[in-house]
Amino acid sequence: MTLADYIAAQQKTVDAVLDRWVPPERQNPSTIHRAMRYSLFAGGKRIRPLLAIAAAHAVADDPAGVESAACVLELIHTYSLIHDDLPALDNDDLRRGRPTCHKIFGDAIAILAGDALLTLAFEVLSRLEEIDAERRIQLVRELATAAGTVGGMIGGQVNDLEGEGKAPTAKLLDSIHRAKTGALLRTSVRMGAIYAAAEPEQLAALACFGEHIGLAFQIVDDVLDVEQPSEALGKTAGKDARQKKITFPAVHGIERSREMAEQERLEAHLALRGFDDRAGRLRELADWIVRRNA
Amino acid sequence: MTLADYIAAQQKTVDAVLDRWVPPERQNPSTIHRAMRYSLFAGGKRIRPLLAIAAAHAVADDPAGVESAACVLELIHTYSLIHDDLPALDNDDLRRGRPTCHKIFGDAIAILAGDALLTLAFEVLSRLEEIDAERRIQLVRELATAAGTVGGMIGGQVNDLEGEGKAPTAKLLDSIHRAKTGALLRTSVRMGAIYAAAEPEQLAALACFGEHIGLAFQIVDDVLDVEQPSEALGKTAGKDARQKKITFPAVHGIERSREMAEQERLEAHLALRGFDDRAGRLRELADWIVRRNA
Repeated sequence: MTLADYIAAQQKTVDAVLDRWVPPERQNPSTIHRAMRYSLFAGGKRIRPLLAIAAAHAVADDPAGVESAACVLELIHTYSLIHDDLPALDNDDLRRGRPTCHKIFGDAIAILAGDALLTLAFEVLSRLEEIDAERRIQLVRELATAAGTVGGMIGGQVNDLEGEGKAPTAKLLDSIHRAKTGALLRTSVRMGAIYAAAEPEQLAALACFGEHIGLAFQIVDDVLDVEQPSEALGKTAGKDARQKKITFPAVHGIERSREMAEQERLEAHLALRGFDDRAGRLRELADWIVRRNA
Repeated sequence: MTLADYIAAQQKTVDAVLDRWVPPERQNPSTIHRAMRYSLFAGGKRIRPLLAIAAAHAVADDPAGVESAACVLELIHTYSLIHDDLPALDNDDLRRGRPTCHKIFGDAIAILAGDALLTLAFEVLSRLEEIDAERRIQLVRELATAAGTVGGMIGGQVNDLEGEGKAPTAKLLDSIHRAKTGALLRTSVRMGAIYAAAEPEQLAALACFGEHIGLAFQIVDDVLDVEQPSEALGKTAGKDARQKKITFPAVHGIERSREMAEQERLEAHLALRGFDDRAGRLRELADWIVRRNA
């Protein structure tokens, strides 16, 4: 199977699993379920679930049910997008090529839909059937920490907000992105590995892979924000510069940023050197993440 | 020990445990931790943790460490207050006698502080040390369900928002409050019981107690909103009527509402008839919740 076919198949599986876990639109109160589904099924790339699934397969031959654990990463990612897009935060009208959640449902429902997706992520982890309670609780701890304030996603978001307009230094940039997007991407890989009962040294190597690929992802994201039009990105392009965000191009310039992304890609591959062919898809995903153009 | 002394002592314990779990203000990013602590340590009554602790003691002689499990209920309750008070939702300036979180820290940080408290609740559950993984994951499932959209807190909040201005019927009222405040109060009692490894019939009886006391709490809350001045409540009084909220006094009148609260109190006591003296504090808390005046 080509990588493109593999990705399409996995995306389809993730969407089907999400559809099973998220209450149907007709379920009372309908508004909130419509809002959750509107943002969730808007054609995201599902990068985080794909990383989790591929990491699990790098460790075990058949990590049955890993798709459910993987889909919680998309619940968390989508909640963070809905809240980030609110007028009080980044105030964005366009996301994944469509009006943002609050433009359609209003700010109140958008806030609650984000809360609901965050809450649902932990419910899904608590209901995973194919792994024991010890591993389920490990996944809860992993996810909560990565999504939290200390070195996690919310912490990075706060640093990002407070960094707007500040002098763009490499140190500040690094601390923002390691937390804001890096933590959840790294945890995606780790959660897949934990699900598949990875040995400690496998988990450490995959965490290192996740660290590098998380950074590579963000560098590429920053570069695309400068280079691509909104239509290609599905979100408002060029906003980072207008909001005086601290980005890789702002600190290092476009050319150097590209080199840095490539360097991270190579480091990511290096982290997987102890793995056999079962890590093949994970290696391919690393290349795909760095070379994507949207 | 008198009930007042017992409550004061438990509140102090809960505050100390919360203080241990929430990152200190100096921890980067400082703003979010200051906002979380500002709302958390504003002199709440800690009703939910108190119920959880008393329920655990009704089941076991020494449910060591239950205070940590109990304090997550306050994390969830406080997150819900911060988000509810936002201009996009109830737009309230006063809470627990002080300006609301967003009045001090701005809407963006208030949204993120709520998200962070919600996330931290699950992290704390995942890190409980004195019970096994099976019980920890049961607590995660219990909390996520009670805080969620289907019959849970967020679902009730949506129904409440959408109910504003609608004809106040007993049926709508019941469905809103069972979910909006009832679910978390009932779960407070259940989580204490689960923590203490309650037998199924004990858990069922305590859930029934929690159901009645949750309803009683909300009836009294609605009555106090009509009868008490803002200074006594620590929040803006009389708002329900102005926002055309569907409340017990609006549907049933003040006198009938008081009778209903008393009826729920009696039903709550009845649910505990199979318990011995270890449920003494839980019985006293039921009376306190119904007879409070703030």
